[in-house]
Amino acid sequence: MAEPAPAASGSGDPPEQPSKNALKKAQKEKEKAEKKAAAKARELAERQKKDAADAEDVSKDSYGELPMIGSKDFKPTGKPRIDLSTIAEHEEKEVTFRCWVQNARVQSAKLAFLNLRQGLTTVQAVVAASEKISKQMVKFCGSLNTETTLAVTGLVKRVKEPIKSATVKDFELHITAAFVEAKADILPLQVDDAERPLPSEGLGDQDEQQTEGDARPLVGLNTRLNNRTLDLRATINHAIFIIKSGVCQLFQEFLSQKGFVLIHTPKILGAASEGGANVFEVKYFDRPAYLAQSPQFYKQMLISSRYEKVMEIGPVFRAENSNTARHLTEFTGLDLEMEFQENYHEVMSVLEDLMLFIFKELNARYKKETDLVRGVYHVEDFKMPESGKVPRIPFQEGIKMLREAGEELGDYDDLTTPQEKHLGRLVLEKYNSDFYILDQFPIVLRPAYTMPSPHNPLLSNSYDMFMRGQEILSGAQRIHDADLLAEQMRKHDPPIDPNGPGTKEYVDSFRYGCPPHGGGGFGLERIVQFWLGLPNIRMTSLFPRDPQRVTP
Amino acid sequence: MAEPAPAASGSGDPPEQPSKNALKKAQKEKEKAEKKAAAKARELAERQKKDAADAEDVSKDSYGELPMIGSKDFKPTGKPRIDLSTIAEHEEKEVTFRCWVQNARVQSAKLAFLNLRQGLTTVQAVVAASEKISKQMVKFCGSLNTETTLAVTGLVKRVKEPIKSATVKDFELHITAAFVEAKADILPLQVDDAERPLPSEGLGDQDEQQTEGDARPLVGLNTRLNNRTLDLRATINHAIFIIKSGVCQLFQEFLSQKGFVLIHTPKILGAASEGGANVFEVKYFDRPAYLAQSPQFYKQMLISSRYEKVMEIGPVFRAENSNTARHLTEFTGLDLEMEFQENYHEVMSVLEDLMLFIFKELNARYKKETDLVRGVYHVEDFKMPESGKVPRIPFQEGIKMLREAGEELGDYDDLTTPQEKHLGRLVLEKYNSDFYILDQFPIVLRPAYTMPSPHNPLLSNSYDMFMRGQEILSGAQRIHDADLLAEQMRKHDPPIDPNGPGTKEYVDSFRYGCPPHGGGGFGLERIVQFWLGLPNIRMTSLFPRDPQRVTP
Repeated sequence: MAEPAPAASGSGDPPEQPSKNALKKAQKEKEKAEKKAAAKARELAERQKKDAADAEDVSKDSYGELPMIGSKDFKPTGKPRIDLSTIAEHEEKEVTFRCWVQNARVQSAKLAFLNLRQGLTTVQAVVAASEKISKQMVKFCGSLNTETTLAVTGLVKRVKEPIKSATVKDFELHITAAFVEAKADILPLQVDDAERPLPSEGLGDQDEQQTEGDARPLVGLNTRLNNRTLDLRATINHAIFIIKSGVCQLFQEFLSQKGFVLIHTPKILGAASEGGANVFEVKYFDRPAYLAQSPQFYKQMLISSRYEKVMEIGPVFRAENSNTARHLTEFTGLDLEMEFQENYHEVMSVLEDLMLFIFKELNARYKKETDLVRGVYHVEDFKMPESGKVPRIPFQEGIKMLREAGEELGDYDDLTTPQEKHLGRLVLEKYNSDFYILDQFPIVLRPAYTMPSPHNPLLSNSYDMFMRGQEILSGAQRIHDADLLAEQMRKHDPPIDPNGPGTKEYVDSFRYGCPPHGGGGFGLERIVQFWLGLPNIRMTSLFPRDPQRVTP
Repeated sequence: MAEPAPAASGSGDPPEQPSKNALKKAQKEKEKAEKKAAAKARELAERQKKDAADAEDVSKDSYGELPMIGSKDFKPTGKPRIDLSTIAEHEEKEVTFRCWVQNARVQSAKLAFLNLRQGLTTVQAVVAASEKISKQMVKFCGSLNTETTLAVTGLVKRVKEPIKSATVKDFELHITAAFVEAKADILPLQVDDAERPLPSEGLGDQDEQQTEGDARPLVGLNTRLNNRTLDLRATINHAIFIIKSGVCQLFQEFLSQKGFVLIHTPKILGAASEGGANVFEVKYFDRPAYLAQSPQFYKQMLISSRYEKVMEIGPVFRAENSNTARHLTEFTGLDLEMEFQENYHEVMSVLEDLMLFIFKELNARYKKETDLVRGVYHVEDFKMPESGKVPRIPFQEGIKMLREAGEELGDYDDLTTPQEKHLGRLVLEKYNSDFYILDQFPIVLRPAYTMPSPHNPLLSNSYDMFMRGQEILSGAQRIHDADLLAEQMRKHDPPIDPNGPGTKEYVDSFRYGCPPHGGGGFGLERIVQFWLGLPNIRMTSLFPRDPQRVTP
């Protein structure tokens, strides 16, 4: 189709004058087009400039941010990666590993330093501009946020002067590639601050802020616990929980060897059987149920079922409104129960050997972690009895020692926490041991199922274990005769109904030939706390629970 | 003072006549006195007879009931005791050990037989009257109640014919002393009955009673569970729980070697964070709290805290009203979570190697126990892939296999339990393996934190593991980016508020450089159930909890 001739193509009609508006519009459009063209030109120029820069950037394929790992944009390299703790084995070799940025600083346009961490290992890394490394890469690496997760490649080089700021002293990494695997936002808590000691036991709602020599404020426990996933990144916390894991494994290792079977007893109970105080109630479908405050009844019922030797590692729930530095409402119980042949001291011997094994192996296998934590809190070594013989102190002798040291207390009184600690110091002086047992406790201080003492009806075949003057275990010979047990329950203060729900099945389990037995329950967090000499038990629980705290 | 003269001493007064009543009374008293004297004489005669008998009883110090062990009347002998399983090492020697009476029968006045048990070992014992063994002792031993706990001494003698009724085939014990340590009342459940198979899956309130060839009724699951401490004495149950303990220890042994840290995450949560369904509510002082339905959020937060590889063994609580043979409201979770470098199949490989290790070592270390249990239920061996390569079947291929076998289901449908079992049979046929993985599940079937698949947005980087056609593990690559996680939570059905209580801290933990990671959670009881081929999961829980049962 032919186009109509233009209006000004020589026809006699005067051309129509464009209106002012139309002129304005045309003008605008022209300007717009010019702007667009200019923008395009600029864009092109920039792109050319950038292309030129990229062309210059010899290392443009050696750094940057990776697409999300596991997404369709991510392309695996298949490059093998080393464990950073083995770096010394790779001198003069190129290695790749994942790590995170402890800190990064640009020294000059041509040089940046980073401290990189993986687990408890830290290494110094350097990026220097060269024929192969661009200034852009140096800037990128030196500007990385603290806590950025990196996949880094570099050459392992021996250094002349040992590096003070890293755990790898004799080598540094000369970075050849660095890719961000996961970015880090601005941190609400600095991991460096979490490395420093607590200002105090850290109790109460207000965080205490004190200053050390370097004038940086110490961060209080509540702030740390409110930001627990960052707090837990601190090497001191890694060390604490590696040790805690270790105690569990040593506990099982030793007892397995002795023939103990690992059990799992129910944590939801149909009745608040053990006296009924301090239990949490649960809505169990349409009825009430309760959280187990110990596996006591069940581990004994299993002895009754002839399992001979049982151990359990599991949560223990205590609805005690205790806001102290050594109480939690949920902690990990290390429990054991065993038959003995003729004397409950057979059980005590197993418990002593168990703890001596754990201490010895902690010193052997977890020395690095132990030293790291104790170093921060300036805690002395844990003293074990040199003879290998754990002091077994009759309760009455403990009372006597305390009285001679000026404490006022009766023959059958319970020890207060300060008195326990005082006794700990006296025992340390006398026996040179931070670990000991009090034996033959007054029966009035113990649960109804405790076997009375054959020597004195006011005492019982029961014991506590202590570390640095604080209790870590309570244990006893248990009554294995249903009639005596029922009698003791009725006589107990407060009395327990031996025919009550939950209790009757327990008492009746002793009617069918139950062998004599004893055992004990450790608080795992306390063992860790007192081994390391930490000021607060919350530090030994990943996500501690107390009357004030159920989060995070 | 002189006594008054008697009335009949020659005075003229006639003596007072006794009244009839008085006569009667005197008569009675006389009779009473005579009776008493006669009784005394009989008692004396009996005592003399008994003394004579005792004098005759050459073995009167070699049997009887001991005073309660631990009481003041009990005198320890200090005699060393052997482990019954080592009895073959003591041929022609006298040994002492604790055991319990499986059964005892008097053969004649001079001969009695007993079956004695300790753990999984049983031995035949014989008591024969002789110069040193009295008939009284033979009678005592042969009349002991089943389940009596004994300290027994005897001579280990080789027998000519292997003994069928005991696990010790080549030796028997010639008893020289037998003391009751703990008596057994009449049993509400015979341990022998607990040794026999369940009549069915044992579900429902009514116990099903079926008969086997020998016409003794089989005891149902509820009766067994109501008398669980006796039920648990059966060797089949000892074997089940030794295996369960073994699985836990093998799990830790393998993963410790790989650098996993054992963790303990809280079971009491301030918020019902994982969607909110199926959680038990707890009264936590003056506020509500909830029981953890998995350690999922916490184990991921620990990856975020850079723990690299974590494992947990702990209770898991599910408020599901499921009354099936494979659901419990409280079970033991074997959980792990780990960083991976570039591909979530690295995690799957660890999981596969872990399970192959566990199966291999169960066969090696727990063969006796495995054979014992499978023997009762006539269960076939567990088939492992001969190549050592675990079948990894894409979910879509599984669907295809099922369709080809006649099942009707859509590409993104969940499998029903019968379909899962059907697929199990198809996989066994095709791959000759009872163990396999389904990979790349439809994303709609998985939790909000599951990483979408790079290949198909309707799928996800997630997997389940199966034993004998039943699920034992659910796992996945998790989203390690806070923004994507929040987006997926909002899009989820039902939607989850990423800023909700409990959830916000979890989501925010991925803002500070969290590495890519994945993991999974096993149900320990299911591993044991399907390893052994047991009909009901309750058999693998010491004191099972389901919607109907919170006791014993």
